[in-house]
Amino acid sequence: MKLATLKNGTRDGRLVVVSRDLRKAVVADGIATTLQQALDDWDACAPRLRALSERLDAGRIDALDFDPAQAAAPLPRAPQWCDASAFLNHGSLMEVAFKTTPIPDADTIPLMYQGASDDFLGPCDDVPLPDEAHGIDFEGEFGVIVDEVPMGCTADDAMAHIKLVVQLNDVSLRALGFREIRTGFGFFTAKPSSSFAPVAVTQDELGDAWRDGRVHLPLHIQWNDAWFGNPHGGEMNFGFHQLIAHAAQTRKLSAGTIIGSGTVSNRDRAAGSACISERRAIELVDDGAIKTGFMRFGDTVRMEARNPDGGPLFGPIAQRVVQQRYHGTNTNSTKES
Amino acid sequence: MKLATLKNGTRDGRLVVVSRDLRKAVVADGIATTLQQALDDWDACAPRLRALSERLDAGRIDALDFDPAQAAAPLPRAPQWCDASAFLNHGSLMEVAFKTTPIPDADTIPLMYQGASDDFLGPCDDVPLPDEAHGIDFEGEFGVIVDEVPMGCTADDAMAHIKLVVQLNDVSLRALGFREIRTGFGFFTAKPSSSFAPVAVTQDELGDAWRDGRVHLPLHIQWNDAWFGNPHGGEMNFGFHQLIAHAAQTRKLSAGTIIGSGTVSNRDRAAGSACISERRAIELVDDGAIKTGFMRFGDTVRMEARNPDGGPLFGPIAQRVVQQRYHGTNTNSTKES
Repeated sequence: MKLATLKNGTRDGRLVVVSRDLRKAVVADGIATTLQQALDDWDACAPRLRALSERLDAGRIDALDFDPAQAAAPLPRAPQWCDASAFLNHGSLMEVAFKTTPIPDADTIPLMYQGASDDFLGPCDDVPLPDEAHGIDFEGEFGVIVDEVPMGCTADDAMAHIKLVVQLNDVSLRALGFREIRTGFGFFTAKPSSSFAPVAVTQDELGDAWRDGRVHLPLHIQWNDAWFGNPHGGEMNFGFHQLIAHAAQTRKLSAGTIIGSGTVSNRDRAAGSACISERRAIELVDDGAIKTGFMRFGDTVRMEARNPDGGPLFGPIAQRVVQQRYHGTNTNSTKES
Repeated sequence: MKLATLKNGTRDGRLVVVSRDLRKAVVADGIATTLQQALDDWDACAPRLRALSERLDAGRIDALDFDPAQAAAPLPRAPQWCDASAFLNHGSLMEVAFKTTPIPDADTIPLMYQGASDDFLGPCDDVPLPDEAHGIDFEGEFGVIVDEVPMGCTADDAMAHIKLVVQLNDVSLRALGFREIRTGFGFFTAKPSSSFAPVAVTQDELGDAWRDGRVHLPLHIQWNDAWFGNPHGGEMNFGFHQLIAHAAQTRKLSAGTIIGSGTVSNRDRAAGSACISERRAIELVDDGAIKTGFMRFGDTVRMEARNPDGGPLFGPIAQRVVQQRYHGTNTNSTKES
């Protein structure tokens, strides 16, 4: 089944079940008002949401037209956002290009940082940022949403805690990140709000493309309407179940915790990249010089993974980066593109 | 005024106003059910909560006995937890002791990591952890809770966004943290759930001890009932207003975001320390060898800052570290002390 959250002026929005073709939606009245509520009581809610989904896909229910522009992130605020860097090809390229010290044990212990999860953006929302000089980048990723995971959960047991699969843009500010990674304290100002594709899906929607805790699909990336990459999610060096076990090593994970894959990255250069920083690293390694700059205000990015049969899956992220200036406490901030 | 959250089986608990002497409490019925609700609409709720507080302190209202053991963290789950390392003496000691590279610009740009905020512990809750070998430590800190802070907020403007002051134990696992800081991705498994003193207070409760965005009070730390330190919060190298401006550089902060000071640390050796790791660093620097081990299961820690007149302020954190084992998906985890 496919679930989305419509904006309604509240912080958690309104849960809807979306048709397989992403054309229709129906509010989940009487089951759960928000996706967080459904995740808090998943075993009870999921069968009822699934029954509603089947009636929707069979055309046996009055439904709204589904407009992705009205969608928030599936979880506009989540209890936790734990983002890995699980495609080791990406890290290896960065190390070679920028001559940084290899991270010890990175092939056996997942790299993961804690991100902010209080204010995720919807798929068509503008990305408000203060300064182009921060090195504005996108990162195309897959992610999973879990129910409550007990501390110490094994990777094998973690598989059953995966309830939904999502696709996201982990917006990154490279000039700030470069400094923050050197402090050892990790990314902070370098990671403003991430954006999510409109629809979160249960694993069965992926068919054979969901296996080994990985999304075996290419993620198609366009920057200003031009092809940028279509790296394949199957090349992930850790499965999501392994990432969950890492995250839960010393804490329980509340229901609604989102675990990210890190930027999708393939060894095959023909796949392109899911972030600008990686293309720049490849230019430096292959050609000896960086040619590509980061995003400018007004630039757009589009990200979409589709079903193996070509049909829609999560729906696309399609958004624009805009400047937001601070004007003091007595006036609101303004966005300019 | 003083606010606390009583456990009631829900994730956000029940907001109560607490008397200045921490003996009595009254539910904030008709004003806000949870502290998060009050923070979401602070300008409307705060005057009504304050009026209730005045009636409570004047003995003009029926009140409950306030039992800190029934208290959750003031915000059991918060939108964000942004923890700084704003006492530079601590970092300097660690660098000298462990011969790590000084962090560039650490005296002008605050060090801050994103922590998990989905599952904070109450002041008397056991701290469940899996393994003594992880190097179990406490960190005594002060913190502030803000209302919504716009992206780009200046330090001067940030002062008005501070609504409450808190005291906390940032539980840390040093063996894991040492590795994670070297990866550059920052603390993750090294930072399990933090614990909070029972009462969050408005700045006026601190009198002259609140100035320059700092808590000018000693934080008294006891480990297994023995004195461990009483470092003074006034020595913080950045004020909380400066930490907020740093956190909001590239994102807005949702109402309820908590900003931490990092472990309180003083240059004067007589003040002791607010974390074991720092005492170990001092032993290494001053005596050439580490004598003190980390916490064992069953150990207790007590942390309390009191008013300049000796009266209670936030109430004490008084908790015990216990082992929690994972027993698979079909049985619950168990705690053992």
